[in-house]
Order: sequence, then structure tokens, then C-alpha cells
Amino acid sequence: MSAILSQVLQANDAYVSTFDKGQLPLPPARHFAILTCMDARLDPAKYVGLAEGDAHVIRNARGRASEDAIRSLVISHKLLGTQEFFVIHHTNCGMELFTGAVISGLLKQSLDTATIDASGWHDHGTSPGSDAGEHIEWLTFSDNAASVAEDVTRIRNHPLVPGYIPIYGFIYDVTSGKLVEVAEATAAGAAR
Amino acid sequence: MSAILSQVLQANDAYVSTFDKGQLPLPPARHFAILTCMDARLDPAKYVGLAEGDAHVIRNARGRASEDAIRSLVISHKLLGTQEFFVIHHTNCGMELFTGAVISGLLKQSLDTATIDASGWHDHGTSPGSDAGEHIEWLTFSDNAASVAEDVTRIRNHPLVPGYIPIYGFIYDVTSGKLVEVAEATAAGAAR
Repeated sequence: MSAILSQVLQANDAYVSTFDKGQLPLPPARHFAILTCMDARLDPAKYVGLAEGDAHVIRNARGRASEDAIRSLVISHKLLGTQEFFVIHHTNCGMELFTGAVISGLLKQSLDTATIDASGWHDHGTSPGSDAGEHIEWLTFSDNAASVAEDVTRIRNHPLVPGYIPIYGFIYDVTSGKLVEVAEATAAGAAR
Repeated sequence: MSAILSQVLQANDAYVSTFDKGQLPLPPARHFAILTCMDARLDPAKYVGLAEGDAHVIRNARGRASEDAIRSLVISHKLLGTQEFFVIHHTNCGMELFTGAVISGLLKQSLDTATIDASGWHDHGTSPGSDAGEHIEWLTFSDNAASVAEDVTRIRNHPLVPGYIPIYGFIYDVTSGKLVEVAEATAAGAAR
């Protein structure tokens, strides 16, 4: 058993030993959903104050409004009753450090972890690479606030998202823990 | 300002007031990534014992190995150094309560939240519906352990995921908080 697996199971045993949330209903008690980045530094339950049972949390690389994220948001509202959505990107995101061409090129060299320094990315990997990265939409970005507004607008304009759901766009500051609102799509459909 | 937005901002203010994680490095300190469900009852940071900075957390409806989840896992390993993946589905998942045909049919009737009882789903919505749900891959499932094994295998066989990354498949029990392992893809590529 790997050290990681062993630590995970030990931490889960500790969680189970004091667990008292076994009777929570399935639909989110506070009727909202968050779409945010997978970044390890972000703990959305802590930074917006969620207890188990409160809200749906959807996460991917960058918290983009991908087709899969929209699938999840539509299920969240249509079947489980959430009524407001939050899109939360963050400062110092790893997704600012590369483009689709860069990661596709690195994956062609090897599948191993690359390193980055002031001169860019370097691949010293030894495993065989693959050109399959060329067929993936990597959803990178260069402007933080613009990427939030783009995703808020994409959700707002989606045919399966009703116009009355407010969609708030935030940037989380990893140095302070603070949420700063940068976009909002109201019932009228306008993003500001 | 909605009550939800107000509560979120208030909770964030409280988080900021005691925040001391402003110097964490971007790559996950504990070198692993979790793919799990957006379900409100699940708090992966709590159930596997994560502090801010420890691990990537990817979440969608059901924690499926969608293309977007695999995009995130590949970025996680190739650029940010994670070395082990966990796929964690759970008992009493909302995704067991419908099929793609069911949600597409409900969305045709209205975009409003539907209700469920012993006789099935009911739509009393008044907003106009849409047939756009027919073009979405909803990724529903009927067998819990089988869906975990399917996703573990899909990640194992992906051309951009190196064979040396262990992929553990778990079911989280919402009544006890316990993780039960149901599948594992080792370096050899076998799922058990």
C-alpha cells in the first residue's frame, strides 16, 4: 500500500469516528452551486463557509464552464433545486502558465511531469509521449477577470439554464483568502 | 443582494480574518488528485484529511471520468506533479435517480426544478422548456461499483495517463462517512 493511500485511509477512519451527518437529505440545503478550480490551495467549503449538505461544488482545472461543468449545473438546478450559481477562479492559477500548444508539445515528448523555470517548461521525462493532447480543448486563458466573465456569460446564455438564476463571478486571492466579485449575470442576462 | 450572496461574503470575511495560508506553493504538496461527486454531503477535504495546499480536487455530477475530468487529471500530473489518482463515487447518489432520457424529457417541459416521489419525476414548471438536453451526455449509471470500475479503467487506458500512476476506486458511504475501495488499477493496468 502506498504512503498516500495509507494516509488517506487513516484520515478517513478519523473522520468516520466522529461522523454525525448520516441523515442529511440529498438536495443541497442552501440551494446554491459553486464552480471553482481544482487548485490544491482552494478549499471552497472553508472559503465560503459550507457544512456537509449545504451546496454543490463542481471543480476542474481552472473552474471553467466546460460542457461537463454545465451538465453538472443543469442537474444541480433542474433535479436538485439550486437557485444561484457562483463561478470562482483565482489568482496565481497554474492555467496561466501554459497554452494548449505548450502542454500538447510537452506530452509529445513524454507523459512524465515537466518542470518550469524562468526560461519556460522543460521535459526530461523518459516514458514515451503521445500526440493525443492535440485533440483536447485545454481551456487555458490569459486574462483573469475576462475568463470569469466569459464563463459567467457562457452559463447565462446556455439554453438549459433559466434566466432567473443569478450567476456571480469571483476571483479568489490565494495570498489573502479573499473573494473579489468581477462579473455578475442577473436575471436580465447582462454581465457587468 | 441575495441572502445567499450575503452569507457567502460574510463567511468569506471570517475566513480571511484568520487566513494564514498565503505562502503556499502552487503544486500540491502531497502529490495526489481526487475525482469525486459535486454532492453537497461530500466534503473531500474532510473525508480524506486535506489541508489547503495538499491535493487537487476535481468534482462533477457523479465524479465521472468525463473528458473534462481527464483534462484536469492530465494537467495535474504532467504540469503539477501529482502521482496517484483517487476516483470516489458515493452511495445514494442523485445520478441514480434518472436517465438521460428522463432529464431530457423534463427539460423539454420546463427549465424549472422538478420534483420526485414514489411514482417518479414531476414537472410543474412554467418557464419554457428546451430540447437541448438531448445533445448532452448525462453520464448517468445504475450500478455503483461498476461505474467506479468503468471510470478507473477509462483513466487507466487514456493515452495521456502514464501506466505507473496508481488509480484507486472508492465508494463513499453517505450514512457513515466511510470510504470503501471497490476497484484499483495498478501499474500493470489491471483493474481488480
